[in-house]
Amino acid sequence: MSLFEQTIAAIQPKDAAIAAKVESGWQELTMYGNFGKLVPMVAQYAAATRQEIPNIPKPCMIIASADHGVAHLGVSAYPIETTVGMTQNYLIPKGAGANALANYCGADMEVIDVGVAADLSWVPGLRHRKVAWGTKNFVEEPAMTKEEAIQAIEAGIELVNEKMAEGYNVFLVGEMGIANTTSSAVMTAKFAGLTADEATGRGSNISDERLKVKQKVVHDALVKYEYIDKNDGLGILHTVGGFEFACITGILLGAAAGKAMVVIDGFNTTACALVANSLSSYAMDYVMASHLSAEKAHVRALKTLGLEAYVDLGLCLGEASGGSIQMGMLDLAVRMYRETKGGHV
Amino acid sequence: MSLFEQTIAAIQPKDAAIAAKVESGWQELTMYGNFGKLVPMVAQYAAATRQEIPNIPKPCMIIASADHGVAHLGVSAYPIETTVGMTQNYLIPKGAGANALANYCGADMEVIDVGVAADLSWVPGLRHRKVAWGTKNFVEEPAMTKEEAIQAIEAGIELVNEKMAEGYNVFLVGEMGIANTTSSAVMTAKFAGLTADEATGRGSNISDERLKVKQKVVHDALVKYEYIDKNDGLGILHTVGGFEFACITGILLGAAAGKAMVVIDGFNTTACALVANSLSSYAMDYVMASHLSAEKAHVRALKTLGLEAYVDLGLCLGEASGGSIQMGMLDLAVRMYRETKGGHV
Repeated sequence: MSLFEQTIAAIQPKDAAIAAKVESGWQELTMYGNFGKLVPMVAQYAAATRQEIPNIPKPCMIIASADHGVAHLGVSAYPIETTVGMTQNYLIPKGAGANALANYCGADMEVIDVGVAADLSWVPGLRHRKVAWGTKNFVEEPAMTKEEAIQAIEAGIELVNEKMAEGYNVFLVGEMGIANTTSSAVMTAKFAGLTADEATGRGSNISDERLKVKQKVVHDALVKYEYIDKNDGLGILHTVGGFEFACITGILLGAAAGKAMVVIDGFNTTACALVANSLSSYAMDYVMASHLSAEKAHVRALKTLGLEAYVDLGLCLGEASGGSIQMGMLDLAVRMYRETKGGHV
Repeated sequence: MSLFEQTIAAIQPKDAAIAAKVESGWQELTMYGNFGKLVPMVAQYAAATRQEIPNIPKPCMIIASADHGVAHLGVSAYPIETTVGMTQNYLIPKGAGANALANYCGADMEVIDVGVAADLSWVPGLRHRKVAWGTKNFVEEPAMTKEEAIQAIEAGIELVNEKMAEGYNVFLVGEMGIANTTSSAVMTAKFAGLTADEATGRGSNISDERLKVKQKVVHDALVKYEYIDKNDGLGILHTVGGFEFACITGILLGAAAGKAMVVIDGFNTTACALVANSLSSYAMDYVMASHLSAEKAHVRALKTLGLEAYVDLGLCLGEASGGSIQMGMLDLAVRMYRETKGGHV
């Protein structure tokens, strides 16, 4: 079996008994009042990581970068080169929003190139796992081959395995790739059964004109790949996905197999969760939603997964921004739970 | 003029030009996507503290403790002595939820006794400003005199003035006082024009039976003090309030006068904001809401103040829990704003 197949086979359901213990035990402590949604947060973390009184999470943010063939169709407000600039900026001078976010929630940060359309081999600290110089334009041909998709997925699995061995047990995933909400719109439409208009949002605030172009691209892709079944996660991923999405799918699968958690962010990382969900019916036991993105189809994507966002701040930033806010709350919730249980905070 | 009067007279409106500059300037940076509700958060902080590119907030949590005469009527699930135990617990061994919360959001913490019905003079680190050993039972007579209310307000003003001189510029307020949601229910009913049933919630998860008792107490108080005008903040505070609420009102007024911000928490601290709002029409420029409490009348109280909660987690904990989560988000939002403006994070 390949690493990809082994990983999927290794995913077990969460420990429901631990979840029930946390939920009933904490809610009984009525003298503290009502802990509300902090309870299911801690219960999921405890059940996923198999800890009855869970330790303070050790978070790692992973940003995956790659380019998209469809970027050349004018679906984004920004040139394709922005992917390169932003990816570098995470590492030198560590001046991106994601760096501030990782600092905020006490997470270490890894950045991985799985398909940026430029030579980034000189960038120090970057994980170099480039599968190709960007995907193909999926309106004309599949974005990547099935083998390439698996290669990018395995890059994610290997990275998360390495980080779990170092003790990290919660992963915040983010992505960088100009035009990637066009790709995730098609993916979400396929998995959630949406029309092109329902699935397509404004990404980084595109104009009405560009929105029409983007809707057309999504529509054309849905027509072209109508034959792919909505339960065929790998089929959807390789035909209309991106390398960064494949990598994040690998992180989701690897974390689940290793009994660690992933906090997803907005629309793009939720599309990756849709892929992971189609590959393993237990994968979502290890996935925690964070914020509700301003991208309109996000709520439908979460619903398809049976997940619920914890906050609605109207953000549409990517870079694990919503995940970082959620990570802060999870950390707090675990500390409060430990305190009520007499554990050291 | 008394310190109380001087403080109210010193409150000026926020700098609306700074708020507008932050809002328009940040929203124009569309390449970053949509910062959503982080924008008004930073705009308010910048406008309140008069900083065009605001510094990272320096937060201080202040917990005010006091007892309530109505606690003897059986409106709470806990005995009145709980106030003493919890207040001590903040300081020795610093093992309360509030300590975990303050650590979480990087806040220092002050605890002030303005009216606990026990001798706490031996507790190290506690601010000793006891006005009386608890309030009177307001169903029979006013909870305190007007002079006592002002004394507790001035204790809050003096504490916040001291902390502002030390450089703190955001205050997270919390309260401890068994039966105090009965008091805040009457206050909120007066200010927001609610019936006893509308205003009365379950506090720390009281039973149906106790809820009926509590509703009756709130109803009786509303009948007894019907003559007090809904704009007479001091009148409402001294007849049906608590010493801890008067102290927090002082913190709200003092911070506003000193151009610092206060993040309120749930139902109780919002009742204090209703008092401050009636004493100064500019006071709310300096007040940021945090979470929506599970206490049902909270949303009406916030609406009366023109404020909106940022998160709804179903919490009903007090101890500045919602405020701490909000503080974490404000801190993050300011860091992101500074980063996009090229400031050091």
